[in-house]
This record gives sequence, C-alpha cells and structure tokens, in this order.
Amino acid sequence: MKIGVFDSGVGGMTVLSELRRRFAKTHFVYLGDTAHVPYGTKSSAQVRKLSAECARTLSAQGISALVVACNTASSLALGEIREACGPGIQVLGVVEPGVSAALEALQQKPLGAPVLVLATKATVKSGLYGRLLREKGVTVFEQACPLLVPLIEEGWTDHPVLHQVVEEYVSSYRKSHPTGVALLGCTHYPWIQEAFQRALPGWTVVNSAQAIASALSCIVGTTDPSTGSRSQESQVDWIFTDPDAIPEFVLPLA
Amino acid sequence: MKIGVFDSGVGGMTVLSELRRRFAKTHFVYLGDTAHVPYGTKSSAQVRKLSAECARTLSAQGISALVVACNTASSLALGEIREACGPGIQVLGVVEPGVSAALEALQQKPLGAPVLVLATKATVKSGLYGRLLREKGVTVFEQACPLLVPLIEEGWTDHPVLHQVVEEYVSSYRKSHPTGVALLGCTHYPWIQEAFQRALPGWTVVNSAQAIASALSCIVGTTDPSTGSRSQESQVDWIFTDPDAIPEFVLPLA
Repeated sequence: MKIGVFDSGVGGMTVLSELRRRFAKTHFVYLGDTAHVPYGTKSSAQVRKLSAECARTLSAQGISALVVACNTASSLALGEIREACGPGIQVLGVVEPGVSAALEALQQKPLGAPVLVLATKATVKSGLYGRLLREKGVTVFEQACPLLVPLIEEGWTDHPVLHQVVEEYVSSYRKSHPTGVALLGCTHYPWIQEAFQRALPGWTVVNSAQAIASALSCIVGTTDPSTGSRSQESQVDWIFTDPDAIPEFVLPLA
Repeated sequence: MKIGVFDSGVGGMTVLSELRRRFAKTHFVYLGDTAHVPYGTKSSAQVRKLSAECARTLSAQGISALVVACNTASSLALGEIREACGPGIQVLGVVEPGVSAALEALQQKPLGAPVLVLATKATVKSGLYGRLLREKGVTVFEQACPLLVPLIEEGWTDHPVLHQVVEEYVSSYRKSHPTGVALLGCTHYPWIQEAFQRALPGWTVVNSAQAIASALSCIVGTTDPSTGSRSQESQVDWIFTDPDAIPEFVLPLA
C-alpha cells in the first residue's frame, strides 16, 4: 500500500515521522511544495489552486490514501484536494484529528477551560478549528503566529528570540487563564513544543500527529503488526517541487 | 512614458516611492509577485523562472523601461528578465546602483574599511554583490538576514525582537570593525534603516533607492522638471499576482 503525505514544505515531516513509526511496512510518498512555501500567508484561492496541483501529482503516484499534513491546506482546500484525487483515494486532513486530540485533553481540565489554537494566518482566517470546537461548546481562542515558521526554518528553535516571540503570542492567554489546552495547528510547531510548554506552564500542549496516525488507521483499515520495530523501515519517496529550496535544518531527516 | 517596477512582493515599494519623487509625471506599473513571495529562500532556477514570467506580464503593459526592484531577482535573473522583455525595453537591476552607492559612501571612510552587504539568502548565495565590490579592491562581508522580511511584514519594525535579530546579524562586524559601510541589499530593509544604524553606530548605512533613481535617469534620458512637486502625482497601476496576499502594513501605501 502506498500512502501520500502532502505539505506546503517540510513541516509535514513531523506527521510523517509519527506515521512511519506506526505504519512501518508502508510505502510513503512525501510531497513538499517547496517552490511555493509558505502557504500560511497566501490567499485562500491561491492555497486551493496549489493544493489541487500537488494532489494531482501525488495521485499520479498510485497512492491509495493521502494525508494532507498541512493545516493551511486542510483548513482551506480539502474539497479541492478530494476532487483532484478522485473517488479512489481516501483523503485525510489534519484539522479533525487535531480537534479530537484537543477535546480529549480538555477532559482532564476544569469546566470552562479554553482551547487555544496556534496556527498560521491563513488557517486562523479560515476559522475551521474555531467552528469545529465551538460546535462542541468549547471556549476557543485562535492565535496566528506568522513568525514561528521562519524562526524554526532558521534553526532558532531554542534561541532567546524564539522564546520572546512565543511569549508575545501566548502571554495574554496565560494571564487570563491559568490552565487550558494549546493545540499546535501547524505542523512546524511540534519542533518547538517545549517552548510552548515553557510559556504555558499550567496548560497541556497538544500535538496532533498521534491523532492523525490513529485516524489513518481507521481509514486504511489496517494496523501494522511490526509497530515499533526498527528493522522494518518504511520506504519514503521524496518529491520537492523546488529540490534546492529545502531548509538546511531538515536535510538530515530527508 | 510607462515604467515597470518589479518586485517579488511589496519591498519594491521603497524603490517606487523614490522613483515617484524623482519622476513625478511618469506612469508606473508596479508588479508584486505576492503569489510567490518570498524569492529570497527559493532556488536560483525557481527565481529565474518566476522573474521571467513577471517580466513577460509587465512587457505586455507597454512599458519602455523596467526597474527590477528586487535584489534576489537582480542578482540571479537579470539575463532571463532581459530576454523575456526583448530589445525594446531597457532593464535596470538594483545591484549595480547599490554597489555604486556603497563605493561612494566608502570614500568618506578610512582606507581598508569594509562594506557589509545585508541581503536575503539567495542574494548572498549568488555572490554578485561580493564579486562587484571585490573587483574594486574592497573588503566585503555578506550577511544573509532571512528573518528580517517576515518581521517587517508583521509590522514589528521597532519591536525589541527586531532589534535583537538585527544585533544577532551585525554585532560581530561592529566588534571587529569600528566603521564601514552597510549596504541594504534587500528592498524591505529601508523600512528598518534606523534599526541598522542603531546597531552599527560608527557605520554609514546605505539605502540604494536614490542611486537606482539616478541610474534610471541615465537610462531613460530624461529628468523630470516637476521634481518635488506634490501637485503632479505620478500614476501607478498595481498588479499583484495574489491580490489577497498583500501584507497589511503596506495597504495604506498601495
């Protein structure tokens, strides 16, 4: 079985990494649209057009399922991606699994504790996370964090500047709410999960990668017997639309 | 006379602003490739392809000269842009005027004072600024500053984080050289010229916009008699490849 993983750039590797751990025998095809990254600052029309093009490229690879490991594309373009893939390919976005993970973490919190969605500008503007969470009666805050992807891609993941920027984005929520759930709504953010945890000490920081892997299990209808075995390395084919524009910090991973 | 101004996004507005001051009766067509911004982190092949496409769009507007107000495109794609425009359109990049401005400022400095070129990753990688300055026997340092464009586009132009990032990029040069010339090799950087000046107190910070306007005068063979007159506002047609992805901080200008 071949599974496609699509991201605007390299952030989806945090999702792929969890998928490889869980589906050790699966053949993955990762497409990073490095020629057009970042999606998070583009208009919804542009995100839809680019996402559909990438979906067509991946569907030509003979995949049977596609994980849209990009929150911006998942929030804005899931319809276009499904249309581009056609009925033979199951398409899974990251928003619904993220929402499920946040709701699960919220069960451990006092009544009325909020969910803070941290994401790109385009994801926040789409309002999808907020809508899905409010439907469940949850208090939601959505915070766009446009400087974090550039900082992460520079490798400044533990730099004082990174901590200062995170503080700028989250401090008002920490001051108004001693506890809550912070949902990482951008696949780059797991690389700085500790920085968020440090800035939100009483909060639970939720990375949706595990929830995505569980959702994929349900969709493809298999659980991989060799889970956790290092001897059975999953295969990954890499496609980058601009192969010379991969940020240096992920080169050891790709 | 119609003059095209091309930038990867909105940075070229710092150049356009100086051109409008000097060519008050001229009709400008500004193309910002907001669907593909930023160019500074892309591969040279991608920058060449995108620049040629934008040059074709502008040449269809009936321009007689084109100012490539993007250092990355000027460093990597001037040949492709000239080819796309054909022989009837004069093409002017920003690198040569910037080098001239830096050399002029260097005359006021002690012998051996260096030029520090501050630019995007792709511009630094092209090595064009360094080559042109070294040909004149100048000591050159080139510093890529990839976090500055995102910070400027967020409007954090006087934020403590901006000053800390600038400090990170320039402090080693200040410590090794009490004076020199810092050349702003990215059209976004004039918006934070004061931050650079504050971090490099003994240095001269050079913004090449005036030199570009002078070079354009030479090329189009006219000086505009109404210079400085506010009553003769130049006309600007705006083309943005993604009109919904214009950073908010420049909306009042466009």
